[in-house]
Amino acid sequence: MQRALELASRGQGFVEPNPAVGSVIVDDNLNLIGEGYHQKYGGPHAEIHALNGAGEKANGATIYVTLEPCCHQGKTGPCSQAIIQADIKKAVIAMRDPAPHVDGGGIAELEQAGIEVEVGLLESDAQKLVRPFVKRVTKGLPWIHAKWAMTLDGKIATKTGDSQWISNERSRELVHQLRGRMDAIMVGQLTAEKDNPLLTARPAGPRTPARIVVDSQARLSSESKLVQSINDAPVIVIAHKSAPSKNIKGLENAGVEVLQIQSAPGSNTAHPDIEKGLLELGHKEMTNLLIEGGGSLLGSCFDSQLIDEVHTFIAPKIVGGKTAITPIAGQGLETIPQFQNIIELEIQLLESDIYVHGLLNYER
Amino acid sequence: MQRALELASRGQGFVEPNPAVGSVIVDDNLNLIGEGYHQKYGGPHAEIHALNGAGEKANGATIYVTLEPCCHQGKTGPCSQAIIQADIKKAVIAMRDPAPHVDGGGIAELEQAGIEVEVGLLESDAQKLVRPFVKRVTKGLPWIHAKWAMTLDGKIATKTGDSQWISNERSRELVHQLRGRMDAIMVGQLTAEKDNPLLTARPAGPRTPARIVVDSQARLSSESKLVQSINDAPVIVIAHKSAPSKNIKGLENAGVEVLQIQSAPGSNTAHPDIEKGLLELGHKEMTNLLIEGGGSLLGSCFDSQLIDEVHTFIAPKIVGGKTAITPIAGQGLETIPQFQNIIELEIQLLESDIYVHGLLNYER
Repeated sequence: MQRALELASRGQGFVEPNPAVGSVIVDDNLNLIGEGYHQKYGGPHAEIHALNGAGEKANGATIYVTLEPCCHQGKTGPCSQAIIQADIKKAVIAMRDPAPHVDGGGIAELEQAGIEVEVGLLESDAQKLVRPFVKRVTKGLPWIHAKWAMTLDGKIATKTGDSQWISNERSRELVHQLRGRMDAIMVGQLTAEKDNPLLTARPAGPRTPARIVVDSQARLSSESKLVQSINDAPVIVIAHKSAPSKNIKGLENAGVEVLQIQSAPGSNTAHPDIEKGLLELGHKEMTNLLIEGGGSLLGSCFDSQLIDEVHTFIAPKIVGGKTAITPIAGQGLETIPQFQNIIELEIQLLESDIYVHGLLNYER
Repeated sequence: MQRALELASRGQGFVEPNPAVGSVIVDDNLNLIGEGYHQKYGGPHAEIHALNGAGEKANGATIYVTLEPCCHQGKTGPCSQAIIQADIKKAVIAMRDPAPHVDGGGIAELEQAGIEVEVGLLESDAQKLVRPFVKRVTKGLPWIHAKWAMTLDGKIATKTGDSQWISNERSRELVHQLRGRMDAIMVGQLTAEKDNPLLTARPAGPRTPARIVVDSQARLSSESKLVQSINDAPVIVIAHKSAPSKNIKGLENAGVEVLQIQSAPGSNTAHPDIEKGLLELGHKEMTNLLIEGGGSLLGSCFDSQLIDEVHTFIAPKIVGGKTAITPIAGQGLETIPQFQNIIELEIQLLESDIYVHGLLNYER
């Protein structure tokens, strides 16, 4: 199963909106007779690669698979049937697939065909691999990554808004790699206006992320680099219901997709309900979404407990300033949490920058 | 000389206001015949320990010393004369002592006595060891350490001012070790009022630092833990000239020393000129001073380029909040420096906290 998980991880960034899956087939003497992983969305699933490798030898063998085999006709045929037809004797499955169109159905089919099924081996490792997929298929929301580069005194920009560059080249390279496995990159209106960013992955990665601006009044300029580069990657504006139709028309004519979203329940501001916006993006099968700031957008996402994963780059610089800009604004917590609310911490030195990566844990 | 530097470093925290010095004596065959270091303020200097170890063998030998030998009668006799009387043949000195009462005088005495003198071996390492001493004797100012514990989103307290605890126990232990080698710990008035801290080293270290509050109107309460524990360590208040004499009298009656300092030139606020206050502390032979916050005090010190060394503890917590408190407030820089303004970076993991230590470099 360890090997299957390792294989599965190679598909990350390539297979979405599908989950990354790996599979290994062994004979009675535990000889490896086939292996494979889901390599690309639209291509064969892991089990099919492994079964193809094993060929006739699959008869009576044991298959290890990191996720419950599918039991439905999608872009490819159902894997449960392929396993049954190959006369596999036993299936060891790390975790059940929580997607509504599977959800135990694959396991049931295998068992009905007389295959011995064991579920749960290295389950937590398997869960980690498909967390974004699981969030999307169970809650309808993309998995939200938050990224910021800050100084050693916790600023993402000086009091004048200057932010170029806090982090070093290696950090910025890593950000581009991160972008290249996302379905979308999101920024707030102020960041789009001030930094006039491209938000593309350079060099390109396995995916071409859409660029999304949360922009209540749909003020994004048609002259912006985002709109000007619309042929390289889609641009989506999440506006409030009250955004002027002139602005919306202008953007739409330039090829921008505008989503008009109402305010959050109970809110009387002219800001779109960010969670509703994210649900629409989840509905578009966006699995991984990276928010790159600014502080207000990250603040309201943190306040609504929408952030899942953080990527922080800390540079050995100090800028000072009471009015300099903080990475996460919004309301914020009243008291210091008496537990680590960033878990699964990974710390890496990128020359003199410190890259801190972890997952949000809102409740102890 | 490497060995002498290693020996010297053992005196740090114990010898101040003297510099840490190490010494080694070798004979013609490069056999080590004596070594020593300045162990404690008031005790024998490094050279004397080394000469005592060598005894008669010092005759015709070579002495290595990390700092120019003193040539004046202080707490102990002049080392230059002791070296001459021991009939040392050659003296290898890492660096000249910039203190006005030495400043080449020790080297001149040795040379006049016919001893061969070589200056500059491993000089930059020797300089690093005595930087705080050199700053005090040349500029009259203590070496200023700044310490803060912040969340991964750059906050030292939530919007309500809650700050306990951001960092973990191991980080707090290290802060107490740091305090124990300081001459003084300094905080701003707001921090003293809100946190009501003791600011002692627990457990005690080699030094007992004075506790200093920058408190324009001398509002420190006689009921505060600082004043209540005045028998454990001195308390000094740096107030503005305009502080009410009633407040000053009250504090003085409780045993607090109050320094009344005028505003900085050109400033028309009722705040003491922090640099003048620090000069007075330098005059009291304070060599190492640790500022523990808050953001305003650290901000004004950073704005005036007074901070020499930073100790940052970054905890895997996020609190968010536009109005949460930032480690370094003040005016701040207009633009991001295009170079690292924290150098000699050292990064250490303290369980899940990240300890970042470095020196300020104000001009590239």
